[in-house]
Amino acid sequence: MNTREVLFDRVALIGAGLIGSSLARVIRREHLANHIVAHSRRPETRTRLQELGIADTVARDVETAVNGADLIVISVPVGASGDIAEKIGPHLKDGAIVTDTGSVKKSVIRAMSPYLPDTAHFVPGHPIAGTENSGPDAGFASLFEGRWCVLTPSAETDQKAVGKVIQLWEAAGSKVDQMSAEHHDMVLAITSHIPHLIAFNIVGTVADLEDDTKMEAVKYAASGFRDFTRIAASDPEMWRDVFMENREAVLEMLGRFSEDLSGLQRAIRRGDAHGLETKFKRTRGLRRDVIDAEQA
Amino acid sequence: MNTREVLFDRVALIGAGLIGSSLARVIRREHLANHIVAHSRRPETRTRLQELGIADTVARDVETAVNGADLIVISVPVGASGDIAEKIGPHLKDGAIVTDTGSVKKSVIRAMSPYLPDTAHFVPGHPIAGTENSGPDAGFASLFEGRWCVLTPSAETDQKAVGKVIQLWEAAGSKVDQMSAEHHDMVLAITSHIPHLIAFNIVGTVADLEDDTKMEAVKYAASGFRDFTRIAASDPEMWRDVFMENREAVLEMLGRFSEDLSGLQRAIRRGDAHGLETKFKRTRGLRRDVIDAEQA
Repeated sequence: MNTREVLFDRVALIGAGLIGSSLARVIRREHLANHIVAHSRRPETRTRLQELGIADTVARDVETAVNGADLIVISVPVGASGDIAEKIGPHLKDGAIVTDTGSVKKSVIRAMSPYLPDTAHFVPGHPIAGTENSGPDAGFASLFEGRWCVLTPSAETDQKAVGKVIQLWEAAGSKVDQMSAEHHDMVLAITSHIPHLIAFNIVGTVADLEDDTKMEAVKYAASGFRDFTRIAASDPEMWRDVFMENREAVLEMLGRFSEDLSGLQRAIRRGDAHGLETKFKRTRGLRRDVIDAEQA
Repeated sequence: MNTREVLFDRVALIGAGLIGSSLARVIRREHLANHIVAHSRRPETRTRLQELGIADTVARDVETAVNGADLIVISVPVGASGDIAEKIGPHLKDGAIVTDTGSVKKSVIRAMSPYLPDTAHFVPGHPIAGTENSGPDAGFASLFEGRWCVLTPSAETDQKAVGKVIQLWEAAGSKVDQMSAEHHDMVLAITSHIPHLIAFNIVGTVADLEDDTKMEAVKYAASGFRDFTRIAASDPEMWRDVFMENREAVLEMLGRFSEDLSGLQRAIRRGDAHGLETKFKRTRGLRRDVIDAEQA
């Protein structure tokens, strides 16, 4: 790894939570940049970034942060992307590469593009990695190892800029894929957004139970519920934005999910044991596919 | 552990899948019985049990299996409990203790009780432990360690018999709780049965996707979907029975879940970001409760 070239002179990380701070750690460890600037809108996060020492400079203003940067990585709740783009647009140096790490791509592109100058290269991205923890203390350099990172540049995007972003994620240990923003949003709606929505929902249902039943639900969480509480511990602000910004695809996939659930409900109510078993058996194959895909 | 008394002279395990075979391994390791008889209705499982050597005798017939047994543990899909009880009832020795490990208690008690003679003691149980794997090869002696086991004996049950079943589970490393069958079924409906139903359901929804989207759902499973595929890989036959036998409580809890999900769906459709965030924030507290309960 020591022979790797320095990819960027100056990298600005806008947002330094789980994702941004993990990326700072990767860039530091792999010597991918000569200088790392980190910005957070929260004063307490900026203080913590100073203490952690994972960036060379901690910038108070987002405009200052991007000054002279070759690469700008935006890792904020996706609903804030447009505001950030509006603020940084006039301060980007010629040839700067702008990328982001948002879980939704179509709305982020729609919100940011109008504010980015033609002299900058926008390469939207989404590292499919995370934990239920948030904030700069939660980050770690190996977060992206072996995980996918999806890039959704338009056909007109400068290929050299795309190549540099690919190099960044590969240096983080990720496998990189490219697809349209629309396709990304639909695939992630069902693999990520709906599972999170469901987890938030069932944990909410339990939170509303009568006190003694709720206490016991917590006690016997290991029977299945536990996995859902972990997923539902994810950052509420980030996920609020995901659902607001990927509304269309989420509602489409939620519609399918709910139809299927009604089918199972009907089978249970009618005592259709055979139908239920048939449906349950189909799902084992997909588990094998997932495990095979991971080992491939 | 070497000073522990032998709890039973002869134990008969009816059903030797994940749970039954794990219990066989515990009983062997802890010397809880002088003789272990295992029975499975499947010839291939009986052959495998012989090969694994985790029981002293492998019985072909369930009637033979229970002959002279002091403890009979029934670990079969709950829908089969009644048939088993009918078959073994006339062959139970006086004072025999009958317990089971089914995930549903009310219907199992209703199905089994009429066939069990007054000379036997019935202590219904449910070890809250498991993995997504099934069959005798999937079992392991530490499966029950640190997990809860819920017993739901009636008020009239012989306390000495209950005490022996408690000793069995404590020897397996479990913590033992007692409650009514009805309460058990309601708590497990929301902590276990609904989470499994939802997992089966979303994996089914993905299985029905257009081919290219499905392929990518498998590829990007790590974004949240993966946990659901693991849960949905659980034994289809066992779970079919759980939903058939705990129909009432499952439909009650599913109703609450669906109402709550409609609320989230409406918030997404209307763009109610604040409402969504408020709902998501509530769930973090419950995660902490679960972790605290585990550490307690």
